[in-house]
Amino acid sequence: MTEKLELLEEHKSFDGVQLKYRHYSTVLGCNMTFSLFLPNKEKFETPPLVWWLSGLTCTDDNFTHKAGAQKKAAELGLAMLMPDTSPRGDDVADSADWDLGQGAGFYVNATQEPWARNFRMYDYIVTELTEIARDTFGLTGPESIMGHSMGGHGALVIGLRNTGRFRSISTFAPIVNPMEVPWGVKAFDAYLGTDRESWPEWDATKLLAEYDGKQIPILIDQGTGDGFFVMQLQPEKLSDIATEKGYPMTLRMQAGYDHSYYFIASFIDEHLEFHQKHL
Amino acid sequence: MTEKLELLEEHKSFDGVQLKYRHYSTVLGCNMTFSLFLPNKEKFETPPLVWWLSGLTCTDDNFTHKAGAQKKAAELGLAMLMPDTSPRGDDVADSADWDLGQGAGFYVNATQEPWARNFRMYDYIVTELTEIARDTFGLTGPESIMGHSMGGHGALVIGLRNTGRFRSISTFAPIVNPMEVPWGVKAFDAYLGTDRESWPEWDATKLLAEYDGKQIPILIDQGTGDGFFVMQLQPEKLSDIATEKGYPMTLRMQAGYDHSYYFIASFIDEHLEFHQKHL
Repeated sequence: MTEKLELLEEHKSFDGVQLKYRHYSTVLGCNMTFSLFLPNKEKFETPPLVWWLSGLTCTDDNFTHKAGAQKKAAELGLAMLMPDTSPRGDDVADSADWDLGQGAGFYVNATQEPWARNFRMYDYIVTELTEIARDTFGLTGPESIMGHSMGGHGALVIGLRNTGRFRSISTFAPIVNPMEVPWGVKAFDAYLGTDRESWPEWDATKLLAEYDGKQIPILIDQGTGDGFFVMQLQPEKLSDIATEKGYPMTLRMQAGYDHSYYFIASFIDEHLEFHQKHL
Repeated sequence: MTEKLELLEEHKSFDGVQLKYRHYSTVLGCNMTFSLFLPNKEKFETPPLVWWLSGLTCTDDNFTHKAGAQKKAAELGLAMLMPDTSPRGDDVADSADWDLGQGAGFYVNATQEPWARNFRMYDYIVTELTEIARDTFGLTGPESIMGHSMGGHGALVIGLRNTGRFRSISTFAPIVNPMEVPWGVKAFDAYLGTDRESWPEWDATKLLAEYDGKQIPILIDQGTGDGFFVMQLQPEKLSDIATEKGYPMTLRMQAGYDHSYYFIASFIDEHLEFHQKHL
């Protein structure tokens, strides 16, 4: 059941409302915050819901503060739900590295200690936060999912593993093949174990190669000035498979843009319009 | 003369560029940062310049990160220059209070110790940073000025004291009469002295009452859900004088908006369009 939500912030934003909540997550075993934008409820009674999954080191605040997405979401009548990127707190395992532990949940269900007790971001999003969205906020309409970097990985994995649930997926500079890049290998070694047996089910490139579900459209933007592009991201690995399979995926190389929220802000309106077409 | 600028950040943003610099300010006697957005230089060779002055506790980052202004500025071909809100550093006077000292320069030239040595934000903006804008970045076109809260006060004071320089002024939730409200009295007591003799020249309401310069249009947005509205801001004091004098000022009460950057983001496009009309 949904635990009690504590309202931390409420701001009128365009003609909608930007909210931030804290709640105890039974899936993660700790307190969590999330942010939620709701368009004008007089105009949009059951708005479609677009999920946003953030990247390494982020909380639910980064996209909420920096992406400038509320204007277009208000105009199109889209709700947006921004989870945090990992379990948090003094009682939750962590590492000294910014790319492992708190702030770096990688949207998997960890099976290895000391992570297995709390690091279940996949279940948290797919079940617990979904239930809150539907039961508490009445967001029972169609859904899409998007994300950035580690959150792009999360959006692709969650979208492809829940066939039929999401109408569209979009990502900015996603980690598409975590099994084969340093960030992903480090996280999967820790969270999933070094035997690699379970890794493919958390790897968008592997999932797409085996995918035979409903073909939901995927949009990927990648900046050519992104310092992580070559070593960590490699979105062409995913688009090559899409091309082979005739899967509807658009990879746009955006000249000169980096890995920051300035890049996200520059194209977020187009992503929301892309989702709106399918919602 | 302009000291050397150190480029700290450069991000492609829409089809412009978002920059952040550090430099030694000879006026303030300390290192300072500022942020600058430049529209596409192929399309806009000498863009008009809109100054943004931030409120209490802010740096040059708050507006840059949170206002979502770059999209409209890129489209209209406007440069935007965001100074910090006070001198900074271990050698600069400070107080334990968030509304006095570092982060709270109030855009005045302090005459009282220990503030007089560094707290000269008025001169810093009107002379030193202006020289950098013109000489280093070639921003020799027309100018407008805008700001929020303490920065709204700064925009009004700088705009009204430099008659003919700025084409338009706009503010979000400005402190219009600092001589008569707690934030302003506290700051002016410290920076300008308790005898109040020099206070009127730093108070927009007093300046407008005496103003006989060129009538540059002023736009003010004030949220009705702003917790500082009644005690600290009172924009109607300024608009009453404008009405009496037949001065071109528009005060818009925006129902339900608070004092945050969500409010600013909701109306920043309209402010940039307002300036563009006059630039």
